[in-house]
Amino acid sequence: MTISTLVDQTIAAISPLDADAVAAAEARQGVLTKPPGSLGRLEYLSVQLAGIFGRPIPQVTGKAVIVVAGDHGVASEGVSAYPAEVTPQMVFNFLAGGAAINALARHAGADITVIDAGVAVDLEPQPGLTIAKVGYGAGNIAAGPAMSRADAIRCLEIGIAAANERADAGANLIAGGDMGIGNTTPSAAITATITGADAADVTGRGTGVDDDALAAKIATIRRALEVNRPDGNDGLDVLMKVGGYEIGVLAGVMLGAASRNCAVIVDGFISGAAALIAWRICPAVAERMIAAHRSVEPGHNVGLQAMRLTPLLDMEMRLGEGTGAALAMHIVEAAAKCLAEMATFAEAGVSDRDDG
Amino acid sequence: MTISTLVDQTIAAISPLDADAVAAAEARQGVLTKPPGSLGRLEYLSVQLAGIFGRPIPQVTGKAVIVVAGDHGVASEGVSAYPAEVTPQMVFNFLAGGAAINALARHAGADITVIDAGVAVDLEPQPGLTIAKVGYGAGNIAAGPAMSRADAIRCLEIGIAAANERADAGANLIAGGDMGIGNTTPSAAITATITGADAADVTGRGTGVDDDALAAKIATIRRALEVNRPDGNDGLDVLMKVGGYEIGVLAGVMLGAASRNCAVIVDGFISGAAALIAWRICPAVAERMIAAHRSVEPGHNVGLQAMRLTPLLDMEMRLGEGTGAALAMHIVEAAAKCLAEMATFAEAGVSDRDDG
Repeated sequence: MTISTLVDQTIAAISPLDADAVAAAEARQGVLTKPPGSLGRLEYLSVQLAGIFGRPIPQVTGKAVIVVAGDHGVASEGVSAYPAEVTPQMVFNFLAGGAAINALARHAGADITVIDAGVAVDLEPQPGLTIAKVGYGAGNIAAGPAMSRADAIRCLEIGIAAANERADAGANLIAGGDMGIGNTTPSAAITATITGADAADVTGRGTGVDDDALAAKIATIRRALEVNRPDGNDGLDVLMKVGGYEIGVLAGVMLGAASRNCAVIVDGFISGAAALIAWRICPAVAERMIAAHRSVEPGHNVGLQAMRLTPLLDMEMRLGEGTGAALAMHIVEAAAKCLAEMATFAEAGVSDRDDG
Repeated sequence: MTISTLVDQTIAAISPLDADAVAAAEARQGVLTKPPGSLGRLEYLSVQLAGIFGRPIPQVTGKAVIVVAGDHGVASEGVSAYPAEVTPQMVFNFLAGGAAINALARHAGADITVIDAGVAVDLEPQPGLTIAKVGYGAGNIAAGPAMSRADAIRCLEIGIAAANERADAGANLIAGGDMGIGNTTPSAAITATITGADAADVTGRGTGVDDDALAAKIATIRRALEVNRPDGNDGLDVLMKVGGYEIGVLAGVMLGAASRNCAVIVDGFISGAAALIAWRICPAVAERMIAAHRSVEPGHNVGLQAMRLTPLLDMEMRLGEGTGAALAMHIVEAAAKCLAEMATFAEAGVSDRDDG
């Protein structure tokens, strides 16, 4: 499929994991001073990182969280517990350093980039904010498509460019984060479309709607699927019909990061929906993804399972912004450090089980 | 119960969580710029830390891992995949910085103390090593008690002193870690005794024994329980009859850390067994514990459930040394930082749901 020159080139650059580096990392795990397998998922993670970075002993060189904001016409259907004005307010909170993602990214040693991909109002330019507005809020998916095909491509390109910029700056763990009042609704529509799950099984309370609003939200998602009839095998079609600007940019971030041999740290439900779109566009991207955590949103796990991703953390979080991804970066880096820094049985003069 | 002056004083200093600090932290979580509850377990953790530290906005001031080594006479029953000589070899590996706990503690920003509580051979004194040998390997619990009552008390006192030293140095997250070939066997005996579980339900493969050896290990544990008849309501009795030197010191570390209003980060199965002993000696200590991870060892979860502790991580780890605890320290500190550093709705000018 031809999408655009930049997107096509990016997809072409996403290769399978480096098999030699994978084999070398696996072999090294077997001779480090511990019973084989006793570091559990840290061992698998280190091997995956070796394959992603193409290095037998992978090293984390930089961590980045790209937070993307956008509004959603479907918010007018009453699908969120918060008013849409919170989207731009939270962008300013990110820039001022007062949001959860700021605290967690600082703690993780990750830098933050904030992109306005489609907030419904104009934002004052300021340091740290990339204004790349594709539109003033995505269309109401309950009534029509979220955006044009050209705008969906534009979203991917913005995300690819942002990931490239972070990779150029030295990051090789790259996470996306989302902000957009109403965005669990398109995420549920995307997840239902791509996984084939029923809308009711992928729809949760988002920021905290009650039972009646949850039932209405599910009905809204069903209407969005009926009105738009997205093709679950075509990631771009899903994005333009039932997606959103920040979701499209996040999918682009993932494609871009993978094309640069970076590990893609997948955050919660909205990032998971973006990951599904990226995966439909380029299946090989999933090998370069690490699922950070399992969100409380039921659709998140459905999406992760479709991509055969097992989340690292289960912290009952449901905030988005990249918070789960930032929290998991420490664990991902820990895996790399164990592989790199531990002594082998021979180096340490420790008896292996075969000696006993 | 009177144990010894130091132990009694330590127990007396372990108070319930600070209710005012808990209430203040809960209230603050409700006004930070996020939907209430959306940070999930990070929110609960921050509230627990407030209660432990006695501060409405708790701050992690230092992190310490106290790794305690000891041998076990029961290793002669063939319960481990590794020879007993590995215990002192790994102590040297800890001191040289080449073990998994070294990589993970460095990554966590935690300092490491290494204590010889009962390695079967004499260790050369060297920087970083505290020699506090209670004996040359605990007795074979399949044939008699692990140690005398006086030695069990001595173990607790060594651990209390080590925790006090780390607290004096500024640490308020304190974890124990274990090293001792054969020590999943006494840990299973302890867990069975204190929780009432059957030996078969709390016995795993340790460093990696096969099916036959697993069956023999379960039989060994049953014999240990029959020979010694430990009283599950008396932590000290359990320790002396079916425990081990490093396990006793770890129990002392937990009591000591709790008495200094530190958070006790509980590592895997052996630390969990030590936690059960500390809990039986002083039930209030459990409120100051944070279970770092769920070990692959089946008995670990049985012990944690008895204390109503839910592990933060599930990484399929089974190494001990404090590795799971070191990995979880980042998450614990993340919880404190979110509470401390996030802006409130009012501060950030963000609309709360009631405004919408």
